[in-house]
Amino acid sequence: MARKVGSVGSITAEAILNEACKLFARFGYAAVSMRQIAAAVGVQASAIYQHYPNKQEILVALLNNHMDALLEAWNNEVRDEDAAAALERFVRFHIRYHISRPDEVFLSYMELRSLEDQGFRIIERKRHTYENIAKTILRHGADEGTFSASDPHVAAMAILAMLTGVNTWYRSGGRLSQQKIEDLYVGMVMGSVGLTAVSKA
Amino acid sequence: MARKVGSVGSITAEAILNEACKLFARFGYAAVSMRQIAAAVGVQASAIYQHYPNKQEILVALLNNHMDALLEAWNNEVRDEDAAAALERFVRFHIRYHISRPDEVFLSYMELRSLEDQGFRIIERKRHTYENIAKTILRHGADEGTFSASDPHVAAMAILAMLTGVNTWYRSGGRLSQQKIEDLYVGMVMGSVGLTAVSKA
Repeated sequence: MARKVGSVGSITAEAILNEACKLFARFGYAAVSMRQIAAAVGVQASAIYQHYPNKQEILVALLNNHMDALLEAWNNEVRDEDAAAALERFVRFHIRYHISRPDEVFLSYMELRSLEDQGFRIIERKRHTYENIAKTILRHGADEGTFSASDPHVAAMAILAMLTGVNTWYRSGGRLSQQKIEDLYVGMVMGSVGLTAVSKA
Repeated sequence: MARKVGSVGSITAEAILNEACKLFARFGYAAVSMRQIAAAVGVQASAIYQHYPNKQEILVALLNNHMDALLEAWNNEVRDEDAAAALERFVRFHIRYHISRPDEVFLSYMELRSLEDQGFRIIERKRHTYENIAKTILRHGADEGTFSASDPHVAAMAILAMLTGVNTWYRSGGRLSQQKIEDLYVGMVMGSVGLTAVSKA
């Protein structure tokens, strides 16, 4: 049951998104009700509807915010540098950004199936924008002659899957430091595009 | 509503698993009811309970069958050969096996969260058995001096994520043949462990 712990005015769209993110990641989008989200936030369901007319808009907002923040974070990171340096920067950035947001990343991959047409198109476009960052670096490296000529689309998808996969096994405080993990992946990714592994391993 | 299209005897555990797999992959485990599974099979819900006492056992059976079939398929594939040849064989096997079973693979990764204790332990052990195939090949190559010394655990997880990622973008009949895709990944994986890319790209 929804608990009434604050006035409508005291809840924010952000609190709704935070709780919805946790619930969707735990139970799956389709299994979570607006009532459950309201209970987790500590308000009546009606208060949720003042911010989001339906559950689908909550999902779209979550995935959209995640992609916007990711793209903006990369924009703050990118430098004018050669392809090998850019690829190393991208690898470290992607791992660091994703392992600190496990629920958002899980949802962003798993609940694409739950997006309706318009929301899907918005999120898909932003995902392509992000994938294109990796493709552009790889194409740049191939043009420079630094990277082995390969298929930049396939190579980008392979590298992104490899990097995001860290989320499936990484535990903070585990055997390896985040720095060491980044180093190992930089070495593997560099090798995968034909550069001598530069890992500090 | 459940439709009655056949006698109880005519439905098999296999039909239940097939329909449950599709429904779980589409809507998520938590959102699917035994009644929905029965309707998809075309029987009353009571007929489902004669095979599986609850939904959790259906999920465990699905994931368990998937892992058993995967491990058996690799056992039929494995040869006594050097680490580089074994790694190439593993890459081609993993891609081929997984892209032909998208729903099972999606569930096997996404619904680990929905397994209860005993089922989780069973599936987790079999997943480790499979991961250990890759780790053993990588350790073997490092011992031989063929592969660059790296962390076999991290390298195995990175390579498995990269390979399984094919499922997120591969469409049968797309721009690239399955053979070409395998070749590109063989090249990248070989490079990632410090071997010269041997891709036929």
